[in-house]
Amino acid sequence: MSEFAPQNPDFVEVVRASFARQGLMQALGIALAEVGPGRCVLEALPDPRLTQQQGFFHGALIGAMLDCAGGYAAYSLMPAGSDVLTTEYKINFLAAARGERLIARGRVIKPGRTLTVAMAEAFCRRDGGEHLCAVLLQSLIQVPVPAA
Amino acid sequence: MSEFAPQNPDFVEVVRASFARQGLMQALGIALAEVGPGRCVLEALPDPRLTQQQGFFHGALIGAMLDCAGGYAAYSLMPAGSDVLTTEYKINFLAAARGERLIARGRVIKPGRTLTVAMAEAFCRRDGGEHLCAVLLQSLIQVPVPAA
Amino acid sequence: MSEFAPQNPDFVEVVRASFARQGLMQALGIALAEVGPGRCVLEALPDPRLTQQQGFFHGALIGAMLDCAGGYAAYSLMPAGSDVLTTEYKINFLAAARGERLIARGRVIKPGRTLTVAMAEAFCRRDGGEHLCAVLLQSLIQVPVPAA
Amino acid sequence: MSEFAPQNPDFVEVVRASFARQGLMQALGIALAEVGPGRCVLEALPDPRLTQQQGFFHGALIGAMLDCAGGYAAYSLMPAGSDVLTTEYKINFLAAARGERLIARGRVIKPGRTLTVAMAEAFCRRDGGEHLCAVLLQSLIQVPVPAA
Repeated sequence: MSEFAPQNPDFVEVVRASFARQGLMQALGIALAEVGPGRCVLEALPDPRLTQQQGFFHGALIGAMLDCAGGYAAYSLMPAGSDVLTTEYKINFLAAARGERLIARGRVIKPGRTLTVAMAEAFCRRDGGEHLCAVLLQSLIQVPVPAA
Repeated sequence: MSEFAPQNPDFVEVVRASFARQGLMQALGIALAEVGPGRCVLEALPDPRLTQQQGFFHGALIGAMLDCAGGYAAYSLMPAGSDVLTTEYKINFLAAARGERLIARGRVIKPGRTLTVAMAEAFCRRDGGEHLCAVLLQSLIQVPVPAA
Repeated sequence: MSEFAPQNPDFVEVVRASFARQGLMQALGIALAEVGPGRCVLEALPDPRLTQQQGFFHGALIGAMLDCAGGYAAYSLMPAGSDVLTTEYKINFLAAARGERLIARGRVIKPGRTLTVAMAEAFCRRDGGEHLCAVLLQSLIQVPVPAA
Repeated sequence: MSEFAPQNPDFVEVVRASFARQGLMQALGIALAEVGPGRCVLEALPDPRLTQQQGFFHGALIGAMLDCAGGYAAYSLMPAGSDVLTTEYKINFLAAARGERLIARGRVIKPGRTLTVAMAEAFCRRDGGEHLCAVLLQSLIQVPVPAA
């Protein structure tokens, strides 16, 4: 399915362990739905914690989920002993984000030894379909795991 | 202090009321520290809810705070009866975000009838000083207040 | 082929006429290779006018071509009597841009009455294949044609 | 004047020599007006080669000049034996770019061993004043000078 070969055979566990350490993702009730080589999917359900002033999913939440979805897509391709940091991202909001589920799909466009470029798209599930509501373009840097 | 004249004399109350309706900001314990014409400051204290996998302030949190700081800076200049939506933003992360306080300062660069452009900078207070850790560049659109 | 229906039946002529008025595109020898509803392709050949300091296609040239390719993709869907302006774009460079031809493909992601969001990708043709070298994410605004 | 100390005492000559090798800048008649530690200014005069479809300075030209102004601002702080490449930039257009001179001012926000972040602003000189027309936020990477 994917065009990328992971360098770390344990990449799924490594990604899941890192995600579990992110207090922000836990505090917001965001779920890691899927991890594959060069891709990652996060999901959120409607919740008063996740709203903007009109009651829709907050754009900043969407930014946070897309940042993480792209970041873990990139991390899935990095070697053992590395960590990942976002150096920058850009997000365009396309439509009001309302629905019964918010889905953030990240995928690597270009892996690299230093920098990886990823994209991520946010979809709202409603009325039996998925509606694109935001798109993100992002750079990530591979760094050594910090000493404990 | 500011180069911009507000169109709505009640802009401080309008911004504060909108901020109070943002479930995401409340859930994360983010405070609206200051509002002025064309500027807004948000603050957060260290909290397990706000961390990334290394225990620092999460980049996506910084993105969320800068998005809101710039957005409310823009909103402060809009006429009564309007609401504000972010159409896009871009953030560059400059340094690990650790310290005793995270401060997001937004300010309008160019107000407009349809689109407003804002910047926002994130600082970490530590060791008696403020350290720039991220910068955001953003577009916002003025829309009518949705009918109740 | 395209998911979008043009509002202006003469969109191909309108796009070509606008492109022909862009002194910058003419000065750089850039060709408008294709226009369709919601998409546009520009091409350039290697030329000393188009280089950066190492002799490759200049990143700023790639930005210019992607900006125009996305902009004309957006313009193709706008009604008669309108003009298009870029409000912002972001570009990520993925690889050195060398080859026998530089191809910029723009397509609309989300058309809108006020704002349209487009993407564009740059490819270098070399060694019998096409190599992705940059990706752009962009906002465009529909404005009235200025009075003559 | 500047907060940054250059690592290469010959940085002015190195920047000027690199600029002179950029065929694109020469083809467009863009001048390198100033170089300092962590800053760079480029200028252009009105010219049919530099226009968009309404006769103003082309947004893509502004993007090209800001990209180079920020890039050479970054390069001025890099050690001897290095070259600079843009990895990404984002530009917001604030106003129509018309006037008797277009000025692009780049400055480093955060230098780094691998990545440097820069900003650049474009001003149009007209009616005896300078008018901000675009702002850019950019990442640059230090690479070894390619072998001859």
